[in-house]
Amino acid sequence: MMMKIKLIALKNFPVIKPGDNISKEILTSIAKQRLKLLPEDIIVIAHKIVSISQGRFVDLSKVRISKKAIQLSKRTGKDRSFCQLVLENSKDIIKASKNVIITRDKLGLVAANAGIDQSNIKDKNTALLLPKNPNLSAKKISLAISNSFDKNLPVIIADSVGRPWRYGLTQISIGSYGIKPLKSYKKDLYNNPLYDTEVPIVDELASTAGLLMEKDVGIPVVLIRGYNYLRSKENSNLLLRSKNNDIFK
Amino acid sequence: MMMKIKLIALKNFPVIKPGDNISKEILTSIAKQRLKLLPEDIIVIAHKIVSISQGRFVDLSKVRISKKAIQLSKRTGKDRSFCQLVLENSKDIIKASKNVIITRDKLGLVAANAGIDQSNIKDKNTALLLPKNPNLSAKKISLAISNSFDKNLPVIIADSVGRPWRYGLTQISIGSYGIKPLKSYKKDLYNNPLYDTEVPIVDELASTAGLLMEKDVGIPVVLIRGYNYLRSKENSNLLLRSKNNDIFK
Repeated sequence: MMMKIKLIALKNFPVIKPGDNISKEILTSIAKQRLKLLPEDIIVIAHKIVSISQGRFVDLSKVRISKKAIQLSKRTGKDRSFCQLVLENSKDIIKASKNVIITRDKLGLVAANAGIDQSNIKDKNTALLLPKNPNLSAKKISLAISNSFDKNLPVIIADSVGRPWRYGLTQISIGSYGIKPLKSYKKDLYNNPLYDTEVPIVDELASTAGLLMEKDVGIPVVLIRGYNYLRSKENSNLLLRSKNNDIFK
Repeated sequence: MMMKIKLIALKNFPVIKPGDNISKEILTSIAKQRLKLLPEDIIVIAHKIVSISQGRFVDLSKVRISKKAIQLSKRTGKDRSFCQLVLENSKDIIKASKNVIITRDKLGLVAANAGIDQSNIKDKNTALLLPKNPNLSAKKISLAISNSFDKNLPVIIADSVGRPWRYGLTQISIGSYGIKPLKSYKKDLYNNPLYDTEVPIVDELASTAGLLMEKDVGIPVVLIRGYNYLRSKENSNLLLRSKNNDIFK
């Protein structure tokens, strides 16, 4: 039975630039602070550094604006080029109103503005898209980092999303590798059957890492130590509830 | 800057019965495992033991069933007495369909079945309601536990809720005391203004504790050590987004 879990922030993580190798930076940072990776550690990474390493920047002044983007801009009051980018990176617009665009993005995630970000970027005329394929990024980083172990350390790529009915953004997993994303409990304490009791492990781990990933300090990587997870080939896409399965609608 | 956080489960926590004193049991359990509370610890408690200590059991065979409950039962396929209880403990029914009732309960929380629980209870004809006033319970437990310190240790009472668009239940705070529930970030890493960047600290802490509160083992209390929170007189009600403020609708 698990009794203790430790969350460890990687100190002095360098500012990531396009082309940087995230796994190398993680290994260097771990070595520098005389930490040692353990074979059961879980690594949670803020999606932003993955996006940046992939050079997912877009110069807003160079975006070709469509009619649809002009309409969306009028409806929301948001910048036309930004609206264009949101449209290009979304499957569905779930809601568009004054200052608000909620989308189901190309990856299937429901979030504001197709996850496109303008914070923590130096240039104000630049937007940052989500990583191309966060599950694949998680896999690549995991494989590169786990060299010295028999088994691969799970990697989770985290982003923050808003919630209906509750204020505040919580961290979820937008990509993962090596860990069972959803755990189903079949029996309770008294061995009675449990129904619909599934825990989105990767989201809970992302939230947990979020405690150390404060928005105004540079901590994009957190180790979680001591959590007893199950290994799996499934990834975070398993958590995507389609419109048809949305019991809240 | 925070670099490490520890999550510590209270071992061998006794099975709570109606009338039991939760704060006393927490102190006993801490002493037994030779732990020491530190003045900056945060205590997260599964709501179920608070409900049980308050004797919030209802004998389903004794519930007087209304016409509305009969209608709700027909629509959802759920037991009539259970539907009656759900109605009595809800402000709004947000959705009712086959096997599904989503409510805004008397406390203002949006969740399934007004948070009424039938798992982890021995008697199958019994349902367990949410604690009467979780913020008040959090306060009382905090005051009773914090006797030996200058300041009161924050207490969070956690429950798990489902989410639109994503599978799995995540832990949120349904009651809290002594900790700022929502943290607003005004500036990013580059000192640029941040908008709509609020983190629901108490929910993230509840999720984090949830990693140790597995559904089929008896760990209802978790200490979080090393997290750098702000003190506040606000409570978890601050996180309730009203229907009118639901940007996702």
